[in-house]
Amino acid sequence: MDFEQYATLYRANLLDDVIPFWLNNSEDKQFGGYLTSLDRKGKVFDYDKFLWLQCRQVWTFSMLYNQVEKRQEWLQFALQGANFLTRYGRDHDGSWYFSLTREGAPLVQPYNIFSDCFAAMAYGQLYKASCDPQHARIAKETFFNILERQENPKGKYNKTYPGTRSLQSFALPMILTNLVLEIEHILEPASVKQTIETGIETVMNKFYRPEFGVILENINADGSFSDSFEGRVVNPGHGLEAMWFMMDLAVRKDDRALMQKAVDISLGLLDFGWDEQYGGIFYFKDIKGYPLLQLEWDQKLWWVHLEAMIAMAKGYLHTGNEACWQWFERLHKYCFEHFTDGEYGEWFGYLDRRGEVLLDLKGSKWKGCFHVPRALYQLWNTFKQIESNHQAMNQQ
Amino acid sequence: MDFEQYATLYRANLLDDVIPFWLNNSEDKQFGGYLTSLDRKGKVFDYDKFLWLQCRQVWTFSMLYNQVEKRQEWLQFALQGANFLTRYGRDHDGSWYFSLTREGAPLVQPYNIFSDCFAAMAYGQLYKASCDPQHARIAKETFFNILERQENPKGKYNKTYPGTRSLQSFALPMILTNLVLEIEHILEPASVKQTIETGIETVMNKFYRPEFGVILENINADGSFSDSFEGRVVNPGHGLEAMWFMMDLAVRKDDRALMQKAVDISLGLLDFGWDEQYGGIFYFKDIKGYPLLQLEWDQKLWWVHLEAMIAMAKGYLHTGNEACWQWFERLHKYCFEHFTDGEYGEWFGYLDRRGEVLLDLKGSKWKGCFHVPRALYQLWNTFKQIESNHQAMNQQ
Repeated sequence: MDFEQYATLYRANLLDDVIPFWLNNSEDKQFGGYLTSLDRKGKVFDYDKFLWLQCRQVWTFSMLYNQVEKRQEWLQFALQGANFLTRYGRDHDGSWYFSLTREGAPLVQPYNIFSDCFAAMAYGQLYKASCDPQHARIAKETFFNILERQENPKGKYNKTYPGTRSLQSFALPMILTNLVLEIEHILEPASVKQTIETGIETVMNKFYRPEFGVILENINADGSFSDSFEGRVVNPGHGLEAMWFMMDLAVRKDDRALMQKAVDISLGLLDFGWDEQYGGIFYFKDIKGYPLLQLEWDQKLWWVHLEAMIAMAKGYLHTGNEACWQWFERLHKYCFEHFTDGEYGEWFGYLDRRGEVLLDLKGSKWKGCFHVPRALYQLWNTFKQIESNHQAMNQQ
Repeated sequence: MDFEQYATLYRANLLDDVIPFWLNNSEDKQFGGYLTSLDRKGKVFDYDKFLWLQCRQVWTFSMLYNQVEKRQEWLQFALQGANFLTRYGRDHDGSWYFSLTREGAPLVQPYNIFSDCFAAMAYGQLYKASCDPQHARIAKETFFNILERQENPKGKYNKTYPGTRSLQSFALPMILTNLVLEIEHILEPASVKQTIETGIETVMNKFYRPEFGVILENINADGSFSDSFEGRVVNPGHGLEAMWFMMDLAVRKDDRALMQKAVDISLGLLDFGWDEQYGGIFYFKDIKGYPLLQLEWDQKLWWVHLEAMIAMAKGYLHTGNEACWQWFERLHKYCFEHFTDGEYGEWFGYLDRRGEVLLDLKGSKWKGCFHVPRALYQLWNTFKQIESNHQAMNQQ
């Protein structure tokens, strides 16, 4: 396929397949919000509402409205999720619950700060579309609450005994880097700049370990390697997601060295994470090759492969690196042979090591309307740019 | 194979293979306690100490000393684990931590009441061997602490929002039924009797659901079915383990109806849990056939199959049911073809759906010196009884 064909394919998969799947199947017309536990055909099989997925779906439809086209249907769909969340999503001090019943009663306490991160993203993106100051206010309050909680994100639910082995986790600094860009329009520029600089430093110089050539999920408080189950684990897809965030920052800062490093780390993560026997990227690996605690370590997850495709497409766009292109084509082929569902639409989420469907759901507690549409949008746009650079070159 | 050959095989696997594996590889000579993260060959790959496994290993060696033979080596091995645990295992109010560093510093807080259950089992069994009143005292204090905590076992670490969906879990009442028998020698008879009666009622009349023919892991506080991810999940191995506890109680109470019901439920769980395509018992299934949250749902775990073998052997011993015998032989064949490691000893723990080894460890955070030796001891003894009944019949 040529560049233009890729762009067309991603656009079509996004707008004619994935987005209609969620529009048609996930609206809770009775209580508001979304029903995200959808079987292969899109039929609802469970009614619990997980805040990660509710917020991410608000974000997706707001983003499409802001970036693709001002379709009222998309804005209305985002608003109907947000209205439910505004009403039921937070506890008395503004932290976001982890899950709610269909009707909106709290099920699981606000122990998980990523609910708050996705809420801030959702309301920040929605505010751009709605211009409703309430949405900006919720995004901002949530963001400040995250900053306040970030040293002990789990609060009283933190089961780690203080002081014995204080690990830093990769997830929060990584997501904050992305979050401040999402809500830049409602923050002070200095605060955005500082979060970005700290984020880049943390991701590229602390969690990236040149001695292993990969990004670790957890390191000791002093920055050293922790030779423990938590310290040894690598999640290649998570690292690859961070690397395309870094590439976007490198473009923004016009920082060629950062771009090059992000591309190099991405290629290293793919070399490390790729399953030579059956294809696809492992979910988890131990950096020393020891047995893992994660029983699902060898499974092939949709989001891992989508994040990898974005990293390779952006790497190719910005550096022309031939290895990025080869990885990109291999990943595209794997995804469209294994994850897409030609019969009922959307993507399968969970494959076994051999690439066979392990769970044929289209959404549940962790898979929702987020990684697939975000990646398809990113890929569509990246290929539009690759094609336009290509044409410009040919005309010279 | 005839009954005697089965008995001989299990005895040999226990005493000549599995127990030496742990004696040779898991002693922490430097700091005391056990090193349970062992690779295929028995080499230590991680040093964290998980209380479940520390306690279970004390129990196993104490039980062998009490039941099989008064080998000093076994008692010493139990004591060296218990000495470490007595010194480092509990917080200020006597609750047992979830994990410790190799040196004994607390890593994870006492959020998990099963650590306490296994501690009470370990010290109760050890007291029978050591006659050290300190061991009886620790077992007793721990047991009373469990009773005090049982209404909210996770304490402040409980993330469930109170009142919205209060589920009862199957695990604690089931394990208490077993625990009171383990520490019967240090409890009041009335307390043992009451716990047993409550346990039987709870397991057989509340968590067993005739309309589904299986045991559920979680039910509503009022005893009704919860149509949620937690309410729909079935763990066939867990149910089968409970059923041989019930069979032991039926023998004790000389209750034929209870025995018959436990056998019938076991057969139902095997019909429900067996993988017709690749053999072996699924780890989890949804009672309505919906997609599960457990990504490891289709894996084949060592303990599930061992508990099933015990249930079928005991069922056959006590009822002569031919279906039990056929299941038993099928399970034995599956286990000895897939789980035992002829090359390096002990059993693999985690197979993929097809029965191929997924993680080639012999121990880690959840697999230790417990299910394999307990099952081999139970099977050896059950077959001695089957054989002796068989001979008695032939002599009539």
